[in-house]
Order: sequence, then structure tokens, then C-alpha cells
Amino acid sequence: MSALSFDETVKNVREALRQEGFGIITEIDMQETFKEKLNLYFRKYLILGACNPRFAYETLSEEDKVGVFLPCNVVVQEHDNGKTEVSIVDPEEMVHSVDNLSVRSFATQIKRTMQQVLHKI
Amino acid sequence: MSALSFDETVKNVREALRQEGFGIITEIDMQETFKEKLNLYFRKYLILGACNPRFAYETLSEEDKVGVFLPCNVVVQEHDNGKTEVSIVDPEEMVHSVDNLSVRSFATQIKRTMQQVLHKI
Repeated sequence: MSALSFDETVKNVREALRQEGFGIITEIDMQETFKEKLNLYFRKYLILGACNPRFAYETLSEEDKVGVFLPCNVVVQEHDNGKTEVSIVDPEEMVHSVDNLSVRSFATQIKRTMQQVLHKI
Repeated sequence: MSALSFDETVKNVREALRQEGFGIITEIDMQETFKEKLNLYFRKYLILGACNPRFAYETLSEEDKVGVFLPCNVVVQEHDNGKTEVSIVDPEEMVHSVDNLSVRSFATQIKRTMQQVLHKI
């Protein structure tokens, strides 16, 4: 949890990902989606899909179906108390059932990088 | 594996998802991404992120961090032999470590829907 504003946190997440070589290749604004599709209010909730092209290339070359786990999602959400929270998917958990040591080793590397990202923001 | 062309398969996947109430909210063309970012050739490989807004709303209302698992990815790829393959993430596997029965029950429903989608194409 952070006392930074939602927008400042999103900015910091983007910058920390960039510094680690991850671009944001998808972006889902759930507040906007729920408003538009269901006409329901939801608090600020953004899903950023991060991808390091080099890692992705090597992983897909190893295991052709692993794209179902891409990109690596980072959620930034604002809680009712005004606090902002950042959550990052656990890449090791995601591929726990993939029977390929190289893929699991990539997941471990990406997890480490994501922990650096969390540390910076 | 299908003998349908890549483009026909993508069209069928979109239609089957639509029929099951899923919109495509993200789309990643890995062939294009690798060409642009790494200047490397990769075969046709598309990651479609499917989302049913009603399911997403109910799941996020139950468990606020579950957005790291959204959307539900469908991969369409063309193999070197010209055959096209569709792979869908297993939502039950994704949330296997989430300690919330409602979320796991949503995952089971979504898995069933995705199996219908695979059946139709």
C-alpha cells in the first residue's frame, strides 16, 4: 500500500518497468470498461501488461504455448480509503504446471525483476 | 491443430468468443512485436485477451488482486507446417493458489465456456 496518488503510482510503475527493460504492451482500465459495458461504478483499477521482448522471444522459442501467460500483469488499484496498491502476478506460480525447466528458469528471472520493480515504487 | 488458415481461425475464435459473451480487450501480435523490437523473424502468433465484463466485475468484487490474471488469453499460432493451433489458458490452473472458493468457482465456469469456444472452432 502506498500513500502516493493513483496517477503518481502508475507513473512510477511505468518508469520502473522501463528501467528493467519491460515495455507496457497492453493496458486495461477496468473502471472505464465496467462503466462502458455494464454502466456500473468501480474504483480506479488498471491492469498493465508488461513484456520484455527478448525474454518473450526466448521463452516462446522454448515452449510454443507459453504465450497464454503473456504479458506479465501489474495491477494498480485505488482502495476506498484512498490508498493505492500495486500487485504483480507471480510468474513462477503461473507456469507451475509447465513441464519445461527453461521456461521455469525464465519465470524465476522475471519474478526477480518484478520484485526489483516493486522495490523501486 | 486445424487445416484452416491462420486468418480464418482468428475470425472463428473472435466469433466463438463473442457468442459466449466474451469481448477481446487486448491483442498482441508477437510476429510484429519481435520484428519491431528485436528485428527478428517469428511465425504468426497472436495473443487475444478475452473478457466477459460481468464475470470480471463479480470476480474483482470478490477478490481485489485477481486482475493480475485478466484477461483470459487465447493464442492462435501458425506452425512451420502451415497448420494453425489454438491454445487457451486454463483459468483453474491460473487461480490454483487463490484461497477463495468463489474465485475458483468463477474459474471453473470460465474454463467450461472456453472449452465450448474450442469446440466451436
